[in-house]
Amino acid sequence: MQRRSLIQRGALAGVLAAGIVPAVHAQAATRWRLASSFPRSMDLLFGSAESFARKVGEMTGGRFQIEVHAAGELMPALGVLDGVQQSAIEACHTSGIYFVGKDDVFAIGSSLPFGMNARQLAGWMTEGNGGKLMGEFYGRFNALNFPCGNTGATVGAWFRREIRTPRDFRGLKFSFDGMAGRVFRALGGLPQKLPAGEIVAALGKGVIGAAQGSSPYDDQKRGFQKAAPHYQYPGWWSGGLQLELLVNRKAFDGLTPEYRAIVEAASAFAQAEMQARYAARNPVALQQLVGGGTVVGGFPRPVLEAAFKASMALGRELGASNAGWKKIHDDYRSFQQQQLFGARHSEAPLDSFLQSVKW
Amino acid sequence: MQRRSLIQRGALAGVLAAGIVPAVHAQAATRWRLASSFPRSMDLLFGSAESFARKVGEMTGGRFQIEVHAAGELMPALGVLDGVQQSAIEACHTSGIYFVGKDDVFAIGSSLPFGMNARQLAGWMTEGNGGKLMGEFYGRFNALNFPCGNTGATVGAWFRREIRTPRDFRGLKFSFDGMAGRVFRALGGLPQKLPAGEIVAALGKGVIGAAQGSSPYDDQKRGFQKAAPHYQYPGWWSGGLQLELLVNRKAFDGLTPEYRAIVEAASAFAQAEMQARYAARNPVALQQLVGGGTVVGGFPRPVLEAAFKASMALGRELGASNAGWKKIHDDYRSFQQQQLFGARHSEAPLDSFLQSVKW
Repeated sequence: MQRRSLIQRGALAGVLAAGIVPAVHAQAATRWRLASSFPRSMDLLFGSAESFARKVGEMTGGRFQIEVHAAGELMPALGVLDGVQQSAIEACHTSGIYFVGKDDVFAIGSSLPFGMNARQLAGWMTEGNGGKLMGEFYGRFNALNFPCGNTGATVGAWFRREIRTPRDFRGLKFSFDGMAGRVFRALGGLPQKLPAGEIVAALGKGVIGAAQGSSPYDDQKRGFQKAAPHYQYPGWWSGGLQLELLVNRKAFDGLTPEYRAIVEAASAFAQAEMQARYAARNPVALQQLVGGGTVVGGFPRPVLEAAFKASMALGRELGASNAGWKKIHDDYRSFQQQQLFGARHSEAPLDSFLQSVKW
Repeated sequence: MQRRSLIQRGALAGVLAAGIVPAVHAQAATRWRLASSFPRSMDLLFGSAESFARKVGEMTGGRFQIEVHAAGELMPALGVLDGVQQSAIEACHTSGIYFVGKDDVFAIGSSLPFGMNARQLAGWMTEGNGGKLMGEFYGRFNALNFPCGNTGATVGAWFRREIRTPRDFRGLKFSFDGMAGRVFRALGGLPQKLPAGEIVAALGKGVIGAAQGSSPYDDQKRGFQKAAPHYQYPGWWSGGLQLELLVNRKAFDGLTPEYRAIVEAASAFAQAEMQARYAARNPVALQQLVGGGTVVGGFPRPVLEAAFKASMALGRELGASNAGWKKIHDDYRSFQQQQLFGARHSEAPLDSFLQSVKW
């Protein structure tokens, strides 16, 4: 790692050629390549990796440099996990949800239908069994996982026609990610495979009737509001999208203990920063969407109940054929229920009062 | 700073005496003293400062050492801000709520009745005007402020007799912190000044009829459940207690840019860790309290409405005599209302559904 970095570093190449290696070693830069699954245009999603890299640079006086590459620059958006696993890159910034094709367990640490919100998931990962269980899982892919951003609960998804009953899903052509897509299919929808860049246009033309966005802030940037009139909440297909910094194990082990601690803390910084950014910007974007004519409406309870039932059935179905899923998912849901018990007697009634009282 | 640290550091003192100063300087330790407002027995509150200090140590290979002192060890629990302001110590770990006697504005970044929850506050501090406004305010006290832990929304407070109507507050002797205490007084309660260590015993003996705890986890440790039977939610006197790392400006300016970034990231790490710890442990403690016979019940809506009205009146009253309060509090409440608009269409309905559905 260090040797390659020295060679890549122009300023030092001349010094190396002059042969004064020992003196140089003390200042040798560690240089990592990080591939993101996100395009630069998704500034908060992509920006979290940049914040992480910038913090590492600041904390090391530029001696540990992390080059952040957007989706497609070094490798395709969804090739980044392979890149880390095969030691082609030292790190990637992504979300497990994109890799359910390899193993459904990836979704658990990232985003599950009717899943935990950001702080509940952090509780499970930090104090519950999530850290150990997901850490072992990522170990199979030669990677260490660090939380590195969470969008928070989204508002909803975009529909050309409002969903009023569970039957409205039948025959509906949609574009939804992994787990959510399977729930929509169970409800009678027809999944359509579309490149990410074509979803908004397909929705606008009626090629599909529904599409998942990610957050009001991002959805507004992508122009969903011009493609479909209905934005329905809540976004039950995810408690909030958790992003992850995945680091190649060998690269991590090759770091000094100081740099390892710096990677962890820089990731925690980026995790908090992204949450704060979405928390601040989503309501503003939502207000603008409403002002622009988007119809923001709730899913009727029977729709939520049908989706919940289908989601729980999917969870059981996956458990029947995937022992790893069953073990981790059972633990996750048990922790989640404890969290719901707590929230019902603390934050939820206060939030609910504050939302309903006349200010 | 560095010179004093060298002198304090035993191992280096001999080296210094031998006169080889230049060689030593490269490895010189920076040593800070941090005074906490919390006792060691409050392991999560106190522990956040320890996590912060440990992370700084790890990231610097022990070259930046922060000695964490519990309340009363170096100075009284509520003397720590003076300590930082007067440069007696480099840093403290506390919460602004304890200093409303100096200026009510301290409460805004810490905990307000019917105030923002942890993530809303983080949004205001990171992306809203909170960072700038509270930063300027702390500047008047010679300090920089970093978020360093949040308990999350608490469950409630302890009452010997259940509160059923706003009139039940009349004549009630209580022990509540600054802002909350003033709201209780406005509702007819009679504030009692008690040292923190005597509150539980006073409640048990009926010297007071009500007391504020901090969280189910901490309250259980302190034995509130043996002193009063009623634990009423939600804890409207605070959206969640925000803790702060306050750093003496001169001490911070004396750090290298690397160490400054490390202080910021270590504090972010500790902030996230404390939130995760409380999120995980509070529901467990609450379940145990219920199992042990504590009566957990909600405040009736007229009680919440009376408390809300009194809290908003207090906010306006303080604004009339404190221009700083008015400016910052108005901005805070405006941000909060935008947050509530967002939550109403995203997390709140999903949480509410998950809490009410049959699993």
